[in-house]
Amino acid sequence: MRLWLNQLNSAIPDNLNEPADLALYELESAFPGISFDLCEQASMGDGYRIELLNGETGRLTGGKTGLLYGAYRFIMDRLCGSGYSSPVSSAPKYALRMVNCWDNADGEIERGYAGQSLFFRNGRLDYDRDRIRMLGRLLASAGLNVLCINNVNVHFPAQLLLEDYLPDLSVLANLFRPFGVRLMVSVDFSQPMRHGIPTADPLDPAVRDWWRMTAERVYAAIPDLAGFLVKADSEGRPGPFTYGRNHAEGANMLAEALKPFGGVVIWRCFVYNCRQDWRDTKTDRPKAAWEHYAFLDGEFADNVILQVKHGPFDFQVREPLSPLLLGMKKTKLAMELQLAQEYTGHQIDLYTMIPMWKELYEELPADNIMSLAAVSNLGNDENYTGHPLAAVNLYTYGLLAWDPSVDAAFAVTRWCRLTYGFTPDQEQALVSLLLSSRRIYEKYTAPLGIGWMITPHDHYGPNPSGYEYDLWGTYHKADRNAVGIDRTHTGTGYLDQYPEWFRKKYENPGTCPDLYLLFYHRLPYDFRMQDGRTLIQRIYDDHFEGLEETRSLADKLLSLPFPEPDSDVIRDRMNRQLYNAREWCDIINTFFHRLSGIPDDKGRIIYD
Amino acid sequence: MRLWLNQLNSAIPDNLNEPADLALYELESAFPGISFDLCEQASMGDGYRIELLNGETGRLTGGKTGLLYGAYRFIMDRLCGSGYSSPVSSAPKYALRMVNCWDNADGEIERGYAGQSLFFRNGRLDYDRDRIRMLGRLLASAGLNVLCINNVNVHFPAQLLLEDYLPDLSVLANLFRPFGVRLMVSVDFSQPMRHGIPTADPLDPAVRDWWRMTAERVYAAIPDLAGFLVKADSEGRPGPFTYGRNHAEGANMLAEALKPFGGVVIWRCFVYNCRQDWRDTKTDRPKAAWEHYAFLDGEFADNVILQVKHGPFDFQVREPLSPLLLGMKKTKLAMELQLAQEYTGHQIDLYTMIPMWKELYEELPADNIMSLAAVSNLGNDENYTGHPLAAVNLYTYGLLAWDPSVDAAFAVTRWCRLTYGFTPDQEQALVSLLLSSRRIYEKYTAPLGIGWMITPHDHYGPNPSGYEYDLWGTYHKADRNAVGIDRTHTGTGYLDQYPEWFRKKYENPGTCPDLYLLFYHRLPYDFRMQDGRTLIQRIYDDHFEGLEETRSLADKLLSLPFPEPDSDVIRDRMNRQLYNAREWCDIINTFFHRLSGIPDDKGRIIYD
Repeated sequence: MRLWLNQLNSAIPDNLNEPADLALYELESAFPGISFDLCEQASMGDGYRIELLNGETGRLTGGKTGLLYGAYRFIMDRLCGSGYSSPVSSAPKYALRMVNCWDNADGEIERGYAGQSLFFRNGRLDYDRDRIRMLGRLLASAGLNVLCINNVNVHFPAQLLLEDYLPDLSVLANLFRPFGVRLMVSVDFSQPMRHGIPTADPLDPAVRDWWRMTAERVYAAIPDLAGFLVKADSEGRPGPFTYGRNHAEGANMLAEALKPFGGVVIWRCFVYNCRQDWRDTKTDRPKAAWEHYAFLDGEFADNVILQVKHGPFDFQVREPLSPLLLGMKKTKLAMELQLAQEYTGHQIDLYTMIPMWKELYEELPADNIMSLAAVSNLGNDENYTGHPLAAVNLYTYGLLAWDPSVDAAFAVTRWCRLTYGFTPDQEQALVSLLLSSRRIYEKYTAPLGIGWMITPHDHYGPNPSGYEYDLWGTYHKADRNAVGIDRTHTGTGYLDQYPEWFRKKYENPGTCPDLYLLFYHRLPYDFRMQDGRTLIQRIYDDHFEGLEETRSLADKLLSLPFPEPDSDVIRDRMNRQLYNAREWCDIINTFFHRLSGIPDDKGRIIYD
Repeated sequence: MRLWLNQLNSAIPDNLNEPADLALYELESAFPGISFDLCEQASMGDGYRIELLNGETGRLTGGKTGLLYGAYRFIMDRLCGSGYSSPVSSAPKYALRMVNCWDNADGEIERGYAGQSLFFRNGRLDYDRDRIRMLGRLLASAGLNVLCINNVNVHFPAQLLLEDYLPDLSVLANLFRPFGVRLMVSVDFSQPMRHGIPTADPLDPAVRDWWRMTAERVYAAIPDLAGFLVKADSEGRPGPFTYGRNHAEGANMLAEALKPFGGVVIWRCFVYNCRQDWRDTKTDRPKAAWEHYAFLDGEFADNVILQVKHGPFDFQVREPLSPLLLGMKKTKLAMELQLAQEYTGHQIDLYTMIPMWKELYEELPADNIMSLAAVSNLGNDENYTGHPLAAVNLYTYGLLAWDPSVDAAFAVTRWCRLTYGFTPDQEQALVSLLLSSRRIYEKYTAPLGIGWMITPHDHYGPNPSGYEYDLWGTYHKADRNAVGIDRTHTGTGYLDQYPEWFRKKYENPGTCPDLYLLFYHRLPYDFRMQDGRTLIQRIYDDHFEGLEETRSLADKLLSLPFPEPDSDVIRDRMNRQLYNAREWCDIINTFFHRLSGIPDDKGRIIYD
């Protein structure tokens, strides 16, 4: 199946040790008619400068890895038809451009929709070297430079990555090194207890010693390891709470161990009560991350980065920006995105993410964070992402992490051109379909920011009350009169976690942007929206439109000349999306019609 | 943990080959002071006659297996304090008193709540001989005589029971033989296709030959095998429909193969469309069995027995009697019960079944059927049934299969006395709790015969709309005004499948017995019931009462002096039941309150 690098030489020599060697190889094999001069300037880091002197001589200046990024930039510019009349310079906004794989040692991927793990099989590191190197090339060409290969939920025997499997991990790190990709490891906070230490208390000297010695051992094997990724005190994971310590004490202990080696601790803020009683209207899950972290602002060590999911829940189609991303000014932050389409169609339904990411940045100053991370959509399927068109999310994520001001249409167009080389009309059609796909998915699924009407656990397909009385804190409380949770100051107080400009934008249902309306407000079905429609009519309209637009999307998409076997896979998944969209549309409309009793004012069929 | 035979000698000699040997051993070791005279009269079959001549000499006359049943009858009568002033004779109502285990070859049990399989491990027959013999004793003492050891969903490698595993199966049959227990095997209708035959068409000569030769081979190894159990064309199982044949053609083909050996085909009638569209209001799942079988009445071979689930759905707390059990007068029928508490509390919640079975017999003439079967509640837990008090269901099922006119309180009392030997007051209290447990469970779960408000797939705990838009055909269609499906002549026509006396009893909502009301009728929440309450108030009342009664049940049960370790297990499960009952009560009440908006007229708390 097609990848965005399919125009490059399919072979990658196995004897290239440095990014610069790879850069030169890629340039020379892509453009044999051009002579390249590579000039390494260590201080430029990931940055580069490209000049095409006379059409026959290229000069590339850059840091050690910058040379590589410059080479791919040049190659992709040329493949996309850009000229080089004047020099081009660039350096990334964020030093760490991370991909988090949720791969388990048994080869399964948590929330994986593209096959099995690329790294693990049967409890061991076990992989195809050629596929790993191809993955390195994909990541490098998208500008991505940190790869965490194991699930943040560290199930045994993944702990052995720091123990018996370390030599094998070091071999894998060597494989990725020419591609400028540094490994990261998810660690189990209680790991010292596997070694006779009766506690994992971060203030216990034996625990601190164990982590210090472990870091020494690990960095002796992999000197450029990016660091440790930690999910602590969340959904059953061990963490500092067990010992009466806070998350700063937990993170700083690990940071101290990694400090001598330049490693960072990426500490995830996805902490909440996942055993909530649905009867309890005081606890509001979106408030949890702020309550656990905001008071610790300024307390974290210099090499700790808090990794915050972009929204306060968990990767729903539409969520507000997490309040932590606007509030923790004295803490290093990474924003976590999710390429894996956990709630967004399982890489069956078409869902291009960059329009959503760009919306996040409309409220998030790019300087508020110092890094981006994304949960991987990768697996060992032939094309790495299952759905051929899901690869656009990995590629455009790379461009966003390099430069958050990147234009969404530019990024998607570039991916389309590199991957399929369609005519301008066809390309324009495909770009337009991809850019519209998120809004279409949003329309036929849960309405107006309410989220969580998805089949529990599996997270594909509708189940409007599936989570309604569950332990996960994700309630809509729809009844015969109204739907939603009041999260304003007079409700759960969630909005109080934000700066004033943000609160003002959302706190009044009369002026709150409609797509977020039910996230912040509980409203009766006959609530009159800004566009003059009632809330219930808007719900019906969106769903009928979402289904119609999916049908139109299918017609247009399937008329494009995708090559085999992409065309078969795309057709098969599009048919499954059509089924899914119809289920969503009809079930959500029926659900609200049964509750409200209000008919559709256009007389379309809502089933009993 | 305590079993009902715990007062007997725990050892069972391994060298007893005939039921009569076992009978004599059991009698002599139970009552060393009595001299027994056993007289076998083959024509009596399972029947027996017991005389106690002068308090010191017993005379037991019976068929080959009748001697065994007579021995256990005498032992249990004596242990329960009955005198023997005059002779006692008995013979069973049904010749086949069957237990169906849904054990898979990998050792898992489908819908098993008492541990792993007693028969299988790691894809092979692999068991503890002593436990098998103890199981034989339990079955014999309860009068049960046919045991199907493998799941009706025949997953590979269970097919090998008729192939490579046949010698091992024969050894197991030998183990059970002294207990009067004959084995049965669930077979895969497509099994000939594992042997190079390109079809499983029941009219194909090669298929018929294969089954005939297989029967020869199987009966050479196990001459007293009871027969084959078949689930065909149901929930994805293979069957005659694939070849355009009907179920009579399928069953009769197997019957022909078994006929020379005296074997029977037990053909299950659990056939319906499990890929139904929730939008389709024409198809009504309870109608399916009748539609598939009624027109074939009289078409089945003499050694085919249709095994019909007692209700038209699938073992809900309350379902009407299946119309097939009242309508197929020219066909041999077995009624299928379920000891496994699939929808009835997972052997966590207390649920004694015999009151429900007795209700079924109020409408079912005992002669309509010629056999009973029950899905097993057995597993390799120490006490075989997980919850110590769940064993009452296995024991009383045996008494019912022997004599459907058995009194429920008598049967339960007998089990209590044999198992725990409490004082009369304590025994009376326990019997009363057990007899009330089904109605309590019914009250706190889905209301008034509607069923299916249980967590999908797992089938424990509430999820009032979990199946509402699913493929399984189990809808309640509750909306803001009304709830239920109209299954009368003016609705789906389900009631038309019944004889007139039955239809008349249920077709009018004003006179329909209240506990079945929502099975047959769609009614508004303000519908006035026969007791003067509104439907919605009755739903609230039942749920609050069910929870209160569970609390009272817990208090009383936990005050009884159960021995260790039973007491710990009972306390633990009772606490889980209390949690479950509260979830059910509150969630169902909230669900209906959100829909109806009608407050509880007693002002009790219904959560938002």
